[in-house]
Amino acid sequence: MRIVRYAVDGRIGRGVVLGDSVHEFSWGDTEPGALVARTTELELLAPCLPRTIVCAGSNYRGHLAVQGRTLPEQPSLFLKSPNAITGPDTSIRRPGDVRRLEYEGELAVVIGRTARRVPVEHAGEYVLGYTCANDVTAHDWRSDGQWARAKSADTFCPLGPWIETDIREPSDLHITTRVGGRVVQSESTSDMVFGVGRLLAYVTRWITLQPGDVLLTGSPAGVGALLPSDVVEVEISGIGVLRNTVVERG
Amino acid sequence: MRIVRYAVDGRIGRGVVLGDSVHEFSWGDTEPGALVARTTELELLAPCLPRTIVCAGSNYRGHLAVQGRTLPEQPSLFLKSPNAITGPDTSIRRPGDVRRLEYEGELAVVIGRTARRVPVEHAGEYVLGYTCANDVTAHDWRSDGQWARAKSADTFCPLGPWIETDIREPSDLHITTRVGGRVVQSESTSDMVFGVGRLLAYVTRWITLQPGDVLLTGSPAGVGALLPSDVVEVEISGIGVLRNTVVERG
Repeated sequence: MRIVRYAVDGRIGRGVVLGDSVHEFSWGDTEPGALVARTTELELLAPCLPRTIVCAGSNYRGHLAVQGRTLPEQPSLFLKSPNAITGPDTSIRRPGDVRRLEYEGELAVVIGRTARRVPVEHAGEYVLGYTCANDVTAHDWRSDGQWARAKSADTFCPLGPWIETDIREPSDLHITTRVGGRVVQSESTSDMVFGVGRLLAYVTRWITLQPGDVLLTGSPAGVGALLPSDVVEVEISGIGVLRNTVVERG
Repeated sequence: MRIVRYAVDGRIGRGVVLGDSVHEFSWGDTEPGALVARTTELELLAPCLPRTIVCAGSNYRGHLAVQGRTLPEQPSLFLKSPNAITGPDTSIRRPGDVRRLEYEGELAVVIGRTARRVPVEHAGEYVLGYTCANDVTAHDWRSDGQWARAKSADTFCPLGPWIETDIREPSDLHITTRVGGRVVQSESTSDMVFGVGRLLAYVTRWITLQPGDVLLTGSPAGVGALLPSDVVEVEISGIGVLRNTVVERG
């Protein structure tokens, strides 16, 4: 099932995609409801509105190898803040004072029920589904030390196009990132150092996640620059394509 | 006016404190409504539920002096995540794997309307009011690099007891932190390197804050350790006292 949030005629709702249409759907529903509109007739929004967004850094073997780094003993966590969230087919706004903006295509885990001290082997029970994310980063602001500006400026967290709930095992999905149609990242999630289950178990030892919260799982090798007017796409097999356009913030 | 969130008889509501009682109050109301209960008969909760919590580090001259550091040229920002929020008179839970837990008494700014690129001289127009915060920190986890665990484990962000809306100028409030009745921090907000207006202007150049979001403004000199069974109080003149008890998380 593909769960979306949408805007149509000034109204925001939650639905599911069936073929080329969106049907009504509320939390707890087991069957889709009435037709809302064709997918092309409405605007898809970020498919969830997390309060807490926890992210794993340096979590792909290939990415670490490129940097000449050894495998970490535990996940590296950082936060993104909700102001950064934007949906599919929106603009990523590059602040005027950023010299180098970067894409980071990632698998995003959407939490389905309150997750506290989740055992690795039960992690799947806490997952509603998966979506695509772009962990947009202002490279030059990493030198701030803490990455609040570097990772959480407005529009730095595109999510979408929907939450795919029919993936039972996320350990071998293919992530492809394209900039202007050119493939810049292409890797399987099997290259992760810490898989979804281990990440979720690690994070929830201390940080309780609520339904709709999001865990970003790190970006493969191939991270690079975004320039104004670039179209950046993060595609994950079995999910779909998250597409955004970079603009000068002005 | 003192705006609270409360729980009584299994119901959660928003109100204002009048004398020793809480009266109903909703966003947009100009006058308090019906009596809810005496303050002692209900449980006060964290007075707001921010999605984005932006914090300034190293923002008191005295604190920097103790550390032998020079004044920074720009604010140092980091994030706390909403799972960390807890109310007054609750427990701060020390994770079993933390060796040194620390208090950091701070003035918290509660945003009143969407704040984007706020000019310093208009910052006050975006503030709903002020409350007390304890930026609880797991000192040994600072070595993670990014401070997600160190600053955002569950219960690491006590807020309260209420949002005081009648402070027009926050530049000379007195912050006192006590542990077990002993004063451990005592400083005026006039010791801040970047005052509330400059912080709000800086943050909102990139991070749009929404009503109910929170800006923590840094902690004065005197940061120190918390042990299980410690009662820690953050008192700010003109606001009130935020009191929490440290427990082993078990």
